[in-house]
Amino acid sequence: MTEYRTLPAGTGAAVGIKQGQRIEIKLAHGLQVVDFWSMNAKDHGEYGSMPHCRNKWFRLSPRKGDSIVTNKRNPIVTFEEDSSTGGHDTLIPCCDSKRYGELGVKGYHRNCADNYKEALTAFGIEPPPLFLPINLFMQVPIGADGTLMIVPPRAKPGDRVVLRAEMDIVGIMSACPHDIFPLNGPDCKVNDVDYRVY
Amino acid sequence: MTEYRTLPAGTGAAVGIKQGQRIEIKLAHGLQVVDFWSMNAKDHGEYGSMPHCRNKWFRLSPRKGDSIVTNKRNPIVTFEEDSSTGGHDTLIPCCDSKRYGELGVKGYHRNCADNYKEALTAFGIEPPPLFLPINLFMQVPIGADGTLMIVPPRAKPGDRVVLRAEMDIVGIMSACPHDIFPLNGPDCKVNDVDYRVY
Repeated sequence: MTEYRTLPAGTGAAVGIKQGQRIEIKLAHGLQVVDFWSMNAKDHGEYGSMPHCRNKWFRLSPRKGDSIVTNKRNPIVTFEEDSSTGGHDTLIPCCDSKRYGELGVKGYHRNCADNYKEALTAFGIEPPPLFLPINLFMQVPIGADGTLMIVPPRAKPGDRVVLRAEMDIVGIMSACPHDIFPLNGPDCKVNDVDYRVY
Repeated sequence: MTEYRTLPAGTGAAVGIKQGQRIEIKLAHGLQVVDFWSMNAKDHGEYGSMPHCRNKWFRLSPRKGDSIVTNKRNPIVTFEEDSSTGGHDTLIPCCDSKRYGELGVKGYHRNCADNYKEALTAFGIEPPPLFLPINLFMQVPIGADGTLMIVPPRAKPGDRVVLRAEMDIVGIMSACPHDIFPLNGPDCKVNDVDYRVY
């Protein structure tokens, strides 16, 4: 069993996960949204696709036992455990430099889009064009008037998600650096996250 | 003003639309869902992106005056007119051969994924990897328990949508060939659609 590693707040990492192995992502250091992308290790054009998941689940968000399916409609990872109350977001794209500019940030702000690219580059893979991640622990409730809201995670510190790989995959995580809205927690603070592959 | 052209039921077409021009898509022959993709004519890696729209609109579906934005967060087309009651779907991926196989269809069934590829090839463009279209007139209400439902269009025959191009674009349409569920109408029938660029 692999030891836990720490993903520093606001940064990204890519890991290889063999079919049948698990990745556990754990809020060991406080509340934090973790953007998670999955990609077929042998075909980087096949990736976990939120639109195709909605067509499979007929829900916006996965429950324990649900698989993320790819753009080719194959299962890629399965939610084997989830100690949080779920509701992981599958609607909102990852943050990027332009988004922080729109939000009034001057100068460079770390962002999940760059984390995706840097993590894959460090892993030795030419980053494919970005696609919509599942935003673990992120909550986007829909109001009665149809308005999407972004509110703090309902998860508790210590909560964890375990995903089992259904094929050899590359998993990419970003501990979202967003500190403008309280999407990572009511205090707008970003935290480290622990993970392990086993 | 360009004459109306007819998009035969179950087929696709790609058209060039200059900045400031409009495309009108009209249910002249009965109810029909029309998958619509938009792409920057000068950069095929920039395209109308439903996740980025949700981050802009903070709603699941556009209203008159809203712009579809790209994966680079630039406006690409604007909903200038919409005589339907709206609610156009931005959640569900286009149908493809594998989906019809899952639904029990034996042999080849026309599908929006192939229509996208064939339309772009006929237009002289190497089709970029598929992305999530806006599914005009398609209705995907969310039940109280979070279940997504696919129900017939609320639009009436004769309804139309007018989209104004905010840059030089390629627009790709598919008159969805789905005749298994009543998503194109209560009778599961597919119909021709009229369109014009002006």
